[in-house]
Amino acid sequence: MDISELGEGIARGDRRALARAITLVESSRADHREQAAELLESLRNSGREALRVGLSGTPGVGKSTFIEGFGGMLTGKGLKVAVLAVDPSSARSGGSILGDKTRMERLSRDSNAFIRPSPSQTQLGGVARRSREAVALCEAAGFDVVLIETVGVGQSETVVAEMSDIFLLLLAPAGGDELQGVKRGIMEIADLIVINKADGDLKAAATRTRADYSGALRLLRKRAQDPQGFPKALMVSALEETGFDKLWEEMTTLADWRREHGHWDARRAAQARYWFEEEVRQGLLAQLQTDEARAAMETLGAQVADGRVTPSVAAGQLLGRIGADRT
Amino acid sequence: MDISELGEGIARGDRRALARAITLVESSRADHREQAAELLESLRNSGREALRVGLSGTPGVGKSTFIEGFGGMLTGKGLKVAVLAVDPSSARSGGSILGDKTRMERLSRDSNAFIRPSPSQTQLGGVARRSREAVALCEAAGFDVVLIETVGVGQSETVVAEMSDIFLLLLAPAGGDELQGVKRGIMEIADLIVINKADGDLKAAATRTRADYSGALRLLRKRAQDPQGFPKALMVSALEETGFDKLWEEMTTLADWRREHGHWDARRAAQARYWFEEEVRQGLLAQLQTDEARAAMETLGAQVADGRVTPSVAAGQLLGRIGADRT
Repeated sequence: MDISELGEGIARGDRRALARAITLVESSRADHREQAAELLESLRNSGREALRVGLSGTPGVGKSTFIEGFGGMLTGKGLKVAVLAVDPSSARSGGSILGDKTRMERLSRDSNAFIRPSPSQTQLGGVARRSREAVALCEAAGFDVVLIETVGVGQSETVVAEMSDIFLLLLAPAGGDELQGVKRGIMEIADLIVINKADGDLKAAATRTRADYSGALRLLRKRAQDPQGFPKALMVSALEETGFDKLWEEMTTLADWRREHGHWDARRAAQARYWFEEEVRQGLLAQLQTDEARAAMETLGAQVADGRVTPSVAAGQLLGRIGADRT
Repeated sequence: MDISELGEGIARGDRRALARAITLVESSRADHREQAAELLESLRNSGREALRVGLSGTPGVGKSTFIEGFGGMLTGKGLKVAVLAVDPSSARSGGSILGDKTRMERLSRDSNAFIRPSPSQTQLGGVARRSREAVALCEAAGFDVVLIETVGVGQSETVVAEMSDIFLLLLAPAGGDELQGVKRGIMEIADLIVINKADGDLKAAATRTRADYSGALRLLRKRAQDPQGFPKALMVSALEETGFDKLWEEMTTLADWRREHGHWDARRAAQARYWFEEEVRQGLLAQLQTDEARAAMETLGAQVADGRVTPSVAAGQLLGRIGADRT
């Protein structure tokens, strides 16, 4: 593969080149990893910057319909929109459940949009790196907005938040005392809580749900990176395509404020540093991924859980066995 | 030091032996570490089980007054109460700010209570292990309730939650729209949110604050380890010593339910396994604590933050430098 040619294609905004490059960064083959590193290095100073938008929502909240409509509104404004999916569950299910082009028919035919389904059969540990690199490729290809969607299984929201400039949580209206089932900790990272389905019979419930979340958000500590009033909750109807303009206005207000106050660059720099440190940590922890280490973890872990040995003694034994007790 | 004698002293509930043993587990000297491991191993099957209660609250919410009063109520019921402090900030401030005996005068003179201030000058990484081992010592010494308090700096709440059977968050009443400043993520671990200062002029505000948190808690996903209605928010006045009986009733209801439904033992087993795995991880990550590794992390981290090199390439360079790229 000619990497410099691929890089030029991306710089021109060629969609086939972009798709091929994403396939390259998704590969775990050693030679592909080297080529991917070379490609990313060559595109590092493209000077292009997208608004990276993380988006989480459980199945059933209308995520595809939302992306279809909201993405279409953005391309209608002349913006180029890329949609990527981070799906940690695909490692288990063996299939892609996100970024389904068939559910975003209009957007997938839109010449200003690029939709990339999540890779199937990925290894959990590599999800973050692959996604992060795909975001960088879309950015270098000149997309104005990169939507990174996730279902919020396990740590995937944190992973997506660490590669986003703005994070949206999409929720459905809840009736009365019905539990929303918002994952604890999600409030940590949400910039905007978007109550979808504010239409028809559900409109009143959406209004109430929005008020509930506005109240809950007020109880949380203000973050330095937020202007007054953020994070905030608002309503949209993906079905009727209402509330999109207001949402986009809030997103740009937040992004502009962060740019003006230095939080944008600071956040990007902190994220880059985070991913560097995270890759170093993962590299060290990879020492636990050998068959021998896994077996020892399992055996000793069971003994610790049963109370047959203290955690410290067992940890010392394991580090000794894998030869990592020299430090 | 005669470890078997020390172990017998603890088994008898001798307070001086307990205090000496805690000093031993707090030491990072290699020979002390070995003795501590021997001691903990000998006490592993004491058959004694305390209710381990994690308690977090920012300065000013009345934590000392609460512990003084609530602890006194428990000893009044004939229960033996130990109070330990987990203070990650002492590594920086160089002093203990928690478990201050002078602020718990009554309880510190109570023969059924044992108060241990947090060690000063501890290294952050060792805080969790030391605290966890001190809890085990108090349990082996026959205490019925072990209160583990923290101010909630950084990760300290998570650390304390992972060694507690029940976790309490102590809050002060907030007026109107005033921000409570609850750390995002704390809702993840709190079993009971306790609004203190429900007395005098603040009583109305406490009632409102309690209602706010009850509402916020209802928006979160139910955890398998919780009976109906938990986590919940309630009010106390540490000053007037009201609400303590109700709080204790809720705590015992929750503890009994978890015991009956298998969550108690499952949680303890999971915690033991967590600490084992955590010590293994910390052992591997200790490879980053050498002067050379620190310097390389700092240099490469700055280059990554500046955009001069991609995170993946920099991580590969660092792992190569410290010789950990073989796996």
